Amino acid sequence: QSAASNVRMYGVLDVGVSTFSRSATVDKRLTKMNTDTNSSSIWGITGSEDLGGGLAAQFGLEAGLDPKSGGATGGAATGAQTPIANVLWRRGSWVGLKSNSWGSLRLGRDYTTHILAQLVNGTGMPDVAINSSTANLMVAQGIGNDFWNSNMIRYTSPSFAGFDVGVQYILGEQPGDSSAGRGIGGVVNYTYAPFKVALSYTKNNGVNDPTLGALGNHANDDVHYWILTGSYDVGKYRLAFLYDKVSNKNKIPYGWLDSKAWLIGGNYAFTPELRVGLQYSEINASDDAVAGTPYKKKSKYAVITAHYSLSKRTYLFSTFGHADNGIAPIQPLWGGSQGGQQAVKGDSINGFVVGMVHRF
Amino acid sequence: QSAASNVRMYGVLDVGVSTFSRSATVDKRLTKMNTDTNSSSIWGITGSEDLGGGLAAQFGLEAGLDPKSGGATGGAATGAQTPIANVLWRRGSWVGLKSNSWGSLRLGRDYTTHILAQLVNGTGMPDVAINSSTANLMVAQGIGNDFWNSNMIRYTSPSFAGFDVGVQYILGEQPGDSSAGRGIGGVVNYTYAPFKVALSYTKNNGVNDPTLGALGNHANDDVHYWILTGSYDVGKYRLAFLYDKVSNKNKIPYGWLDSKAWLIGGNYAFTPELRVGLQYSEINASDDAVAGTPYKKKSKYAVITAHYSLSKRTYLFSTFGHADNGIAPIQPLWGGSQGGQQAVKGDSINGFVVGMVHRF
Amino acid sequence: QSAASNVRMYGVLDVGVSTFSRSATVDKRLTKMNTDTNSSSIWGITGSEDLGGGLAAQFGLEAGLDPKSGGATGGAATGAQTPIANVLWRRGSWVGLKSNSWGSLRLGRDYTTHILAQLVNGTGMPDVAINSSTANLMVAQGIGNDFWNSNMIRYTSPSFAGFDVGVQYILGEQPGDSSAGRGIGGVVNYTYAPFKVALSYTKNNGVNDPTLGALGNHANDDVHYWILTGSYDVGKYRLAFLYDKVSNKNKIPYGWLDSKAWLIGGNYAFTPELRVGLQYSEINASDDAVAGTPYKKKSKYAVITAHYSLSKRTYLFSTFGHADNGIAPIQPLWGGSQGGQQAVKGDSINGFVVGMVHRF
Repeated sequence: QSAASNVRMYGVLDVGVSTFSRSATVDKRLTKMNTDTNSSSIWGITGSEDLGGGLAAQFGLEAGLDPKSGGATGGAATGAQTPIANVLWRRGSWVGLKSNSWGSLRLGRDYTTHILAQLVNGTGMPDVAINSSTANLMVAQGIGNDFWNSNMIRYTSPSFAGFDVGVQYILGEQPGDSSAGRGIGGVVNYTYAPFKVALSYTKNNGVNDPTLGALGNHANDDVHYWILTGSYDVGKYRLAFLYDKVSNKNKIPYGWLDSKAWLIGGNYAFTPELRVGLQYSEINASDDAVAGTPYKKKSKYAVITAHYSLSKRTYLFSTFGHADNGIAPIQPLWGGSQGGQQAVKGDSINGFVVGMVHRF
Repeated sequence: QSAASNVRMYGVLDVGVSTFSRSATVDKRLTKMNTDTNSSSIWGITGSEDLGGGLAAQFGLEAGLDPKSGGATGGAATGAQTPIANVLWRRGSWVGLKSNSWGSLRLGRDYTTHILAQLVNGTGMPDVAINSSTANLMVAQGIGNDFWNSNMIRYTSPSFAGFDVGVQYILGEQPGDSSAGRGIGGVVNYTYAPFKVALSYTKNNGVNDPTLGALGNHANDDVHYWILTGSYDVGKYRLAFLYDKVSNKNKIPYGWLDSKAWLIGGNYAFTPELRVGLQYSEINASDDAVAGTPYKKKSKYAVITAHYSLSKRTYLFSTFGHADNGIAPIQPLWGGSQGGQQAVKGDSINGFVVGMVHRF
Repeated sequence: QSAASNVRMYGVLDVGVSTFSRSATVDKRLTKMNTDTNSSSIWGITGSEDLGGGLAAQFGLEAGLDPKSGGATGGAATGAQTPIANVLWRRGSWVGLKSNSWGSLRLGRDYTTHILAQLVNGTGMPDVAINSSTANLMVAQGIGNDFWNSNMIRYTSPSFAGFDVGVQYILGEQPGDSSAGRGIGGVVNYTYAPFKVALSYTKNNGVNDPTLGALGNHANDDVHYWILTGSYDVGKYRLAFLYDKVSNKNKIPYGWLDSKAWLIGGNYAFTPELRVGLQYSEINASDDAVAGTPYKKKSKYAVITAHYSLSKRTYLFSTFGHADNGIAPIQPLWGGSQGGQQAVKGDSINGFVVGMVHRF
């Protein structure tokens, strides 16, 4: 193996002490350590090699971890297919080329282009307050299956006149039927500083999942969704909104919910160190999704969070979240992997946490 | 992710060739590769960030591994709760702050304060001969469940007039009962060079473990223990002792043994490279622990070990261990994870190993 | 833990888009992402410490991974013993000493000496086209069980008059029977530039595997094999051959096939960046192996591959493979771990892939 001067390790750790008005299984107060309230805890390895002429080779490996317990494995959901258990590099294992002139092309497991544009690089919330806001909404609708995808070919363009685009193609890998299990999607970003908008469309074809019996044959069905986001950022003030619509008419499982959601939020920097944000959102399940359940169609979700920076890489935080859930099970705070996510259908639940984030 | 100039990888590999007078399951000689005879085989990632004013952010990820087979996963025992299977960072995944004036505070999975003071930083044995001496005793009594704990808030003080203290609080995470599963503990260290003593107390509350049926409900029980250690170190000579008492009156499972143990040992540097150590110890199970078993109350354990240093980071070793076991199943040598630990109740067993340790 | 100035991370990622004329389970076309077509995807940590006098301490940890899905765990086969599941460092976890004068000695899990000499450092194919040529043959014969071994003591000599040797001894670790499960093997390499030949012999003793019932008792049986390889390398032209013979008279399971195989191949550099190679090979199962199966004795395998280098560490590739299988199930292309290896007994199967390899 050759010299590796540009290989870099990086990561994020997010840990806090929290209390919830009930747990996922019992209507009793639960006090616990909470991870990933703001930003997912990860570690990764990345690097690039200059190939000359504005071209570079790139790679990335990224793993989640749960600092509460040391856990590092987790299921790797992909579009409308059965999740895979126990995948170390569940957040990325890809290789690709990047050109200054035509953009980048990557092969492997990776973030989807719309999630990068509309969640990770966000909707204007405090920089790392991703999980206990937009991500919580998306997971309750099933979009968490697409935070990353396996078997993906991903292209992202350079910026031109304020526009850039990203598209991904996910191979379905079903013998004799190249459309089953296939995923396609893309996003158009437009920046007119300090405004930014992004619109994405994603479609995941189902597969025949024999482990689910008669309910598992979705080789000819699909789930698809639109997401529109926008933000306004003048430094001290940031405002953001999101609107999405998930269509799952044929009831593909793995958490997909036929529904619409919207979110509005903003934050303000009282001092260079202290930033406080507010966010409100709703998920409306479709009539079809509600039929046969005792839960109401609408789930409501409000969050207030404060960040106090100790450096560019380290901050303390406190977050309060309230979810008043119908059929969509929104967590009041992102719950991490161990000890259960506090998502409950048809009940109201509060969560409060004080903690710390460090990036390396 | 930002620049990470101070991220560091480290590790230890301990491998040898060994022979045992019997195996854990059969009374026949067993020749095998042995790992972790002296020091546990690990790899980890750690780093810190200077926040100014004597304050720093810190993080650590530490994983065990078994160089015999390449294995890296393992159960993560925590106090008096059910172990968790297949945890990569089972030896640490934490983030925290460190101050020159008030000490350090960490959140996550981590070494307990008393194990750090009374085992890892040791009882005066050759620097790394931890496993086939004190650790073996502790594991046979169940204290191995507390080498690390999940869901831990850990504080360690700076040193003042020779004293320093460490305390940990482990969240039980049981809905509706914040005391069930809770762990608390701490250690007081006193150094009056070349003497050093440490006294610790630890209490783990049980939980209701439905997987164990009627015998698993320990939500109102606890296991607690005292450990007293001391050492005298004048470079060429080192002497050390340990005394502990584990109380498990309500028979919480996961290996806890109602018992007392003591250990005395010393070593001598014949040359700057060659150090030879001797150690003798006993575990006495309580009358209550013995009732209903055919084994005697006392287990005896003697070890002789020689280290030959090739550098500060690399040494060769040879160790002979003899365990004459009653109810406490002491291993003659630490056995690593693959191929079985050679711990047998009610029988005598010898182990001999020649090997190598390298730290990076 | 001490300073680690010489610890290095490294890795390889090999991903492509492929199409196969059938899948392993169904006779229908399968289009999929393919990993490891040329070189296995890995990441690892290695380092050494200078001990003075021409002596150094060394260590290595090496893990496989599947960039399609992020998977990183896998069974760790060892000689004629039951594979171990879910081993992270399945490609290496060892520590040892290296001397300029007497060679190197390593303990732990590691590459076997003959696989290093006759596969990894190869038979003259394009440098990294290991998997979809010789490795495919060896896996179909069962030799894949010996790419790495656990519990290994491995010695490799320095070169003397063009000769160097490597030997390994694998401890069987069966109580009361130190020969059961034992593996021994070695290779003699001779270099007379531009010619190179290597001859190896390996013998794996079976164990009693109770999970297989009456068919699993092989404590007194063994599987052994010879491999002869040679190459001729004048830069632009490279030619290579392999001949091997696997004896498994007592039908030890885990994929071992009583058989003979031969391979001949060559490649040519049309430009400094573009190299094209051709390879043909056959496996002949013994009469004994064929009895009771409907398949013919002979499997045939042909591959054509082109590499286009973007740098010393990065290249694009395209490979076509055709397997016409009898009882030995050769894959047309190496298939990686997720999505099934496309190896089918008694059928013909084609595979085609375009992809990229990056080493860091």
